[in-house]
Amino acid sequence: MPGKTNAFDRVAILGLGLIGGSIALGLRRKGHAGLVVVGYDSDDAARATAGEIGLVDEMAASASAAVAGADLVILCAPVRAMGGLAEEISAALSPGQVVTDVGSVKGSVLAQVAPHIPGGVHFIPGHPVAGTEQSGPRAGFAELFEDRWTILTPPGDTDDEALARLTDFWQGLGSRVTCMDADHHDMVLSITSHIPHLIAYNLVATAHDLEQVSEKEVIKFSAGGFRDFTRIASSDPTMWRDVFLANRDAVLETLGAFIEEMTILRRAIRQGDGDLLFDLFNRARDIRRGIIEAGQESAAPDFGRHPELGEDGENKKESS
Amino acid sequence: MPGKTNAFDRVAILGLGLIGGSIALGLRRKGHAGLVVVGYDSDDAARATAGEIGLVDEMAASASAAVAGADLVILCAPVRAMGGLAEEISAALSPGQVVTDVGSVKGSVLAQVAPHIPGGVHFIPGHPVAGTEQSGPRAGFAELFEDRWTILTPPGDTDDEALARLTDFWQGLGSRVTCMDADHHDMVLSITSHIPHLIAYNLVATAHDLEQVSEKEVIKFSAGGFRDFTRIASSDPTMWRDVFLANRDAVLETLGAFIEEMTILRRAIRQGDGDLLFDLFNRARDIRRGIIEAGQESAAPDFGRHPELGEDGENKKESS
Repeated sequence: MPGKTNAFDRVAILGLGLIGGSIALGLRRKGHAGLVVVGYDSDDAARATAGEIGLVDEMAASASAAVAGADLVILCAPVRAMGGLAEEISAALSPGQVVTDVGSVKGSVLAQVAPHIPGGVHFIPGHPVAGTEQSGPRAGFAELFEDRWTILTPPGDTDDEALARLTDFWQGLGSRVTCMDADHHDMVLSITSHIPHLIAYNLVATAHDLEQVSEKEVIKFSAGGFRDFTRIASSDPTMWRDVFLANRDAVLETLGAFIEEMTILRRAIRQGDGDLLFDLFNRARDIRRGIIEAGQESAAPDFGRHPELGEDGENKKESS
Repeated sequence: MPGKTNAFDRVAILGLGLIGGSIALGLRRKGHAGLVVVGYDSDDAARATAGEIGLVDEMAASASAAVAGADLVILCAPVRAMGGLAEEISAALSPGQVVTDVGSVKGSVLAQVAPHIPGGVHFIPGHPVAGTEQSGPRAGFAELFEDRWTILTPPGDTDDEALARLTDFWQGLGSRVTCMDADHHDMVLSITSHIPHLIAYNLVATAHDLEQVSEKEVIKFSAGGFRDFTRIASSDPTMWRDVFLANRDAVLETLGAFIEEMTILRRAIRQGDGDLLFDLFNRARDIRRGIIEAGQESAAPDFGRHPELGEDGENKKESS
């Protein structure tokens, strides 16, 4: 059962990109009497666009103005901008307010933001594991968080009621909510999100620099698998630069494991060890089955990218 | 304008999986008077399934029986099974027939198959760059090749008319057709298809072996990017084992370039070089734009995997 949507009455969203915009749209779709969504973005163009498409109820003139009087403040900035943003709003915060964020790295955000949170204000870092490869105020949509997981990383001294209200808030947007400590979050996300993006970016760079194959050929024959990587490699560059800098240790550790594994696979190819390759390729199917069963993916054969293939995993041709 | 579909009247498809099945369905959808599609698969279960769903007009009792009297023979076996299949049908081939294949590696197929092709039979290797992550006779669909590229790698002494007829054939299935030599094909596909699959398999193996993160957590939080990789890592293990063994040299060379690039990226993360990361991430967007403009991908934000997002790249919410 989804939680109640009226955990907070005045919600300030600082940063109106894909995630901030989707929160605004989700809130307003399910809105309750008295709900006011206040927005701010330090980028003039983003603020203008958000105003144009009516993303929020009130557009504030500054981050501080946005948070004054809000009962929930959500920081939706790139990871390394969180500290500066927290410092900027610090004086405008008042006891009883809940402050959270949506950054993809939690240890770094906790370290940057916590020093600027006045006593009596509840800061609970968070991360909705949801997104698309698009960015900016026009990229948001109300359903982004449905059936996705939001991870909260409450410090040890977190107020129970504030945590319960924030959990309700995310459930109201359709998300599932779980808690873990910030360091474990950063290790988990290094493999489920950060390294996948890094190797996607790396593959695109490799293709760009190959001497024997032209960029035109890469584009033309990308349907063989390459295009799937360009999708996530077209995500917001600023956001991702910050993720890799802010989660350096976990990313380097997981990347080390990836390279070790690659060394084994490379040797198997060089030595013609078909059994090792087959076993490894076969095992990969199990994890995918788990992901589909967990409702985090559809079984539809998307690789063909054909409009006649339905979301339910069946070819429409078979049912027509 | 698509080519005519009656380049051949009796087409033998040897191997009734995703590609062979899709050819059969595509041919029969656009079929002309007198067209007969004959099928065979060495796997009893695949043959039974293909028979059940009526994939072909005639199911042959052997590969040799299938090719007798056909004017086009298409080898749709895993790459390293091509030589054995060609040897098996060799005695049943007769002058004037065109033989092609759909293997993902062309140098190896040419070397394996050519010795078994009798004089007067036209062997032209080919590769439709299309597919999904699914396999087997039920995975095929008639539209798989539409707007995708088929690469033909005709040897120097190829008969012009045979090449023209095979080109017409693929165009009749909706494919675009281009020619190049086998070695160049294998290098191009190593970056656009083989290495993407290899690193997807490798990422899934890395996740499997990580000590600090459970498989359950990987599955739960896969929406951050990881799930995109499991999609292509769930492709047919036998087919892919064969690709890496048969295209060893090009794969190892491209993999070397990938690892070099990864070393640079890893150092940038270790040294905190945000400018290098940002520039590289930003460049990746250009290639994606090229792929979308070339009609090889849709701009729809698929990463969100939401049924309310249309294929035209617009959120349906905006138009409703």
